[in-house]
Amino acid sequence: MADFSKTDKTTITRLPKRGVYDQETVYAILDEALFCTVAYVREGEPFQIPTGFCRMGDKLYIHGSVGSFYMRELAEKNLPVCISATLIDGLVLARSAFHHSVNYRSVVMFAKPEKVTDEAELYTAFEVFTNKMQPGRWDDVRKPGAGEWKATMVLSFRIEEASAKVRTGGPKDDDEDYALPVWAGVVPLRIEKQSPVADELRKKDVPLPSYLKA
Amino acid sequence: MADFSKTDKTTITRLPKRGVYDQETVYAILDEALFCTVAYVREGEPFQIPTGFCRMGDKLYIHGSVGSFYMRELAEKNLPVCISATLIDGLVLARSAFHHSVNYRSVVMFAKPEKVTDEAELYTAFEVFTNKMQPGRWDDVRKPGAGEWKATMVLSFRIEEASAKVRTGGPKDDDEDYALPVWAGVVPLRIEKQSPVADELRKKDVPLPSYLKA
Repeated sequence: MADFSKTDKTTITRLPKRGVYDQETVYAILDEALFCTVAYVREGEPFQIPTGFCRMGDKLYIHGSVGSFYMRELAEKNLPVCISATLIDGLVLARSAFHHSVNYRSVVMFAKPEKVTDEAELYTAFEVFTNKMQPGRWDDVRKPGAGEWKATMVLSFRIEEASAKVRTGGPKDDDEDYALPVWAGVVPLRIEKQSPVADELRKKDVPLPSYLKA
Repeated sequence: MADFSKTDKTTITRLPKRGVYDQETVYAILDEALFCTVAYVREGEPFQIPTGFCRMGDKLYIHGSVGSFYMRELAEKNLPVCISATLIDGLVLARSAFHHSVNYRSVVMFAKPEKVTDEAELYTAFEVFTNKMQPGRWDDVRKPGAGEWKATMVLSFRIEEASAKVRTGGPKDDDEDYALPVWAGVVPLRIEKQSPVADELRKKDVPLPSYLKA
């Protein structure tokens, strides 16, 4: 079964104490994942929210409206968070139900929020965020104006206490099950971009940008 | 930017108090999502783990090794959890960086774990879990044996206090930005199954099952 606690290859990392490979693994997962979940303790109870994010150097960035309750709560109370991001790479179909699993890459990290106030850092975070969503996009779009800066809160989290877990490869069956007449293997999964759908309210003479052509 | 707090359509649900539509939305998201994150409070600090899961009726099920620290901690201490599952349906490319977003469907729910001990419920959960991963798979595989039952802990969580959030549709730009010569629209995303890769250790004469043919 898809038990994420069973892994072929586990990279448990406290980043400052480990080598470059582990840090690269953590960063690569964070750079590919389209969302993370931010968990924190709200009045003694667990709470979590899914949100977009980006990474710059050794920091993870999230942003939201300055009116957002959870952003303000995190920032004002300086609450410790646990953040995770997960990529599912394949379905692992074993000969027995028990050994079914998934191939995946995940990061779990612990940190405290820091409210970003430096304008250059804010600007670069917007750029990285936009280009993470769609490489090449930033150069094309209207850049944030003063009102938009004021409406946005950006929090950073230092990627310091982080662990990556990775499962790759085929099923691991019990010895006696290999003789069973059951197909076994992996169904790889991939997030595919479909054909872009233009906003009907667009100017009619704006062509599809090259970075969106397949 | 991909701020999940901005949504076109928000379904906040306390399931028992709302209509069938909301419950259907929550269930459909849970049935499609390949993983969830389970957050809880560990010694005063937030903790979360990504894990596979399935739904049966009004309960969400996760499972793990009986030796798994977090499974035992959840079960023995009866800890309240916050669980979320998220699907990203598209990149929403607006004319301004600020209004970039994603189309998504997410569920956040609150519950307490219940250790599943009823054999019929355990068996059905294994079946639903396996067929959620790959429809048609259960009939094909070796069913769990006694040792496997004993090695597995299954926890259920009643889907009672749950909310779904959904964003669909195109970008929402500021009025004055619609005149900009910037392409805007949506890049739909889909998790695609690639061609199955057979386990090299398989019996050579086992054909690809029909449910895995494109």
